[in-house]
Amino acid sequence: MESPRSPPPPKPFTALEHSTDAKFHLLLACTGSVATIKLPLIASTLSERYGNTLSIHVILTSSAAKFLQNPFNIEGVHRVWTDDDEWSFPHNKSGTWERGDPVLHIELRRWADMMVIAPLSANSMAKVVGGLCDNLLLSVARAWDTTVQPGSAGKKIIVAPAMNTAMWNHPVTAQHIATLEKWEWMEVLRPVEKTLACGDIGAGAMREWQDIVALVEENSGLSLSS
Amino acid sequence: MESPRSPPPPKPFTALEHSTDAKFHLLLACTGSVATIKLPLIASTLSERYGNTLSIHVILTSSAAKFLQNPFNIEGVHRVWTDDDEWSFPHNKSGTWERGDPVLHIELRRWADMMVIAPLSANSMAKVVGGLCDNLLLSVARAWDTTVQPGSAGKKIIVAPAMNTAMWNHPVTAQHIATLEKWEWMEVLRPVEKTLACGDIGAGAMREWQDIVALVEENSGLSLSS
Amino acid sequence: MESPRSPPPPKPFTALEHSTDAKFHLLLACTGSVATIKLPLIASTLSERYGNTLSIHVILTSSAAKFLQNPFNIEGVHRVWTDDDEWSFPHNKSGTWERGDPVLHIELRRWADMMVIAPLSANSMAKVVGGLCDNLLLSVARAWDTTVQPGSAGKKIIVAPAMNTAMWNHPVTAQHIATLEKWEWMEVLRPVEKTLACGDIGAGAMREWQDIVALVEENSGLSLSS
Ligand SMILES: Cc1cc2nc3c(=O)[nH]c(=O)nc-3n(C[C@H](O)[C@H](O)[C@H](O)COP(=O)(O)O)c2cc1C
Ligand SMILES: Cc1cc2nc3c(=O)[nH]c(=O)nc-3n(C[C@H](O)[C@H](O)[C@H](O)COP(=O)(O)O)c2cc1C
Ligand SMILES: Cc1cc2nc3c(=O)[nH]c(=O)nc-3n(C[C@H](O)[C@H](O)[C@H](O)COP(=O)(O)O)c2cc1C
Repeated sequence: MESPRSPPPPKPFTALEHSTDAKFHLLLACTGSVATIKLPLIASTLSERYGNTLSIHVILTSSAAKFLQNPFNIEGVHRVWTDDDEWSFPHNKSGTWERGDPVLHIELRRWADMMVIAPLSANSMAKVVGGLCDNLLLSVARAWDTTVQPGSAGKKIIVAPAMNTAMWNHPVTAQHIATLEKWEWMEVLRPVEKTLACGDIGAGAMREWQDIVALVEENSGLSLSS
Repeated sequence: MESPRSPPPPKPFTALEHSTDAKFHLLLACTGSVATIKLPLIASTLSERYGNTLSIHVILTSSAAKFLQNPFNIEGVHRVWTDDDEWSFPHNKSGTWERGDPVLHIELRRWADMMVIAPLSANSMAKVVGGLCDNLLLSVARAWDTTVQPGSAGKKIIVAPAMNTAMWNHPVTAQHIATLEKWEWMEVLRPVEKTLACGDIGAGAMREWQDIVALVEENSGLSLSS
Repeated sequence: MESPRSPPPPKPFTALEHSTDAKFHLLLACTGSVATIKLPLIASTLSERYGNTLSIHVILTSSAAKFLQNPFNIEGVHRVWTDDDEWSFPHNKSGTWERGDPVLHIELRRWADMMVIAPLSANSMAKVVGGLCDNLLLSVARAWDTTVQPGSAGKKIIVAPAMNTAMWNHPVTAQHIATLEKWEWMEVLRPVEKTLACGDIGAGAMREWQDIVALVEENSGLSLSS
């Protein structure tokens, strides 16, 4: 599976450059679930409400990108990152990583005040829980700063699992959710558990995108008056 | 690794279309083990015996396809699915998934009366146990309907692990097998444990393909008289 | 991600062919960490010291190859293997695996007297612990002969984890290290735990390459006098 390619940056992205922009840095990440189609709504709503005080970057897995018709053109989003960006070193003569070069997943983790993975697919949930990190999104999650400094609340990762009802009912799901909920820096927005007549749609569906927006507002200190 | 590509369907596959064909729906799945070369034997034997009452679909991982010289032309098989099919939406204008489109791994799970993963590689076994599902085969297994309705036996997944003796003896194998055997919807056909002189071939080898055919017959209610 | 391609072998590699060369067979494996840039130092140092009694083969993951400017030309290394080699059957008419063909990851495991994975990335560590083997390096590790014969010490895998400090501090790391240290055939060279001022570099960094060379010497019976 190949992920779409964004134009190479003229110089590498570093967290330091943006450390004094006085904005809340929101890293919105999507995985390969149908609920990825809600990304433009979440991004545009937050951006309209907090335009001047909020900066939104997006990470897409290669599966997630397949749900968007214009993955690199999402209203309200400052930058969209995909796996290729992690390995792109156009500022270098060698084209491979050189000593001193920034490492993208580390820079993004430093840059981000909060990460939201919505939707979180069954597959990516399993990988986060197992500590696997074979793509950019998972590398940011694996490299998250989980040590809380005294006097600080720490940075959060909010996850919104989204999957088919049968996937949700599979016994591994409960184990994975239990692990995620045990990790203090994680906030799990459990799926809505409405069981529909057809039996298959319902439990497992991602929480309403408005709930996700509200949780971001609550946890970020952003508010309409800011 | 690229998987071979089947011709795009004129309209998407749905379980509903086939729900009244009065056939037993067998989903034969193969992973990247040498034992995949037994697939044609299993498929043709079952098809010869139960031609009119049996419909066979196949799923290949990209590694499995490398063991077959004509992966898309297997006697007795109605359709061969690979990873690309999951993401192919030729009936759409956008070419990406659109609201209302069927989701292939869900349709295949609904269609199937039974799934047989033979051979099951060490790698795919680990992913099934861990809940990972980064390909079509694994997504069907992850989305399997594991809730048994009252009065129903539930649908089964039969797995036939196949691996090198040393892989079989590695301590993670026993843990994985134990988990699979705990899951009521799983039937594990343990490898034959004949240890050969050379020490390396033997334990871990896939059960005889005739045993797999027999187990399918036993669990499916198919029989020569039907 | 595509891995670089080595020229196809005229005939397949087998362990048997090399079983009487009276050399110590060292399999040096690298994963996608910045510390992969130390590979040439490790290989050339060992080769200079033990040229006639030592044979070095290298396995690179596709991520590891991105850290080397000339992945197929490393001083002191006899052969570099990548994922494509596992599936390359140029000696065959069919181009796919045929009964009787050697299986590369099994041949490499048989050939090797010792395997050293340095650096071991967080991702590959998770996969080794979980029993996943979706590439050549991991397949060799999964197929390692873990049964010790009476009177023999068994063959070792030495691993040198290397990762960002935050990755190292993530709670899954400790679980993974504990599992690796429980496996008798594994020797874990824990990262150096110097916490630097910036907070981010330090704990998690791969042990000095000289320490790795020394551990190989110690465990292999190689010595300057040999
Ligand atoms: C049309 C379509 C819809 C899917 N919807 C979901 C979903 O809602 N939840 C889920 O866990 N997987 C879903 N999948 C399966 C995942 O996309 C698949 O497991 C993929 O490997 C996930 O990759 P990622 O976790 O790297 O993003 C869907 C697949 C397709 C083709
Ligand atoms: C020629 C050849 C034969 C292999 N045979 C086996 C096997 O019998 N069992 C196994 O677990 N892996 C075997 N492997 C390794 C798997 O193919 C490899 O782990 C792969 O990533 C599995 O992919 P899959 O689980 O997605 O099908 C073999 C590889 C090669 C190249
Ligand atoms: C420039 C760069 C440096 C990286 N350094 C490390 C590292 O030191 N340790 C680590 O665990 N991952 C590191 N990563 C992330 C891994 O390369 C990534 O998780 C990859 O999927 C690992 O693949 P592998 O385990 O198959 O080799 C780095 C990535 C980049 C782009």
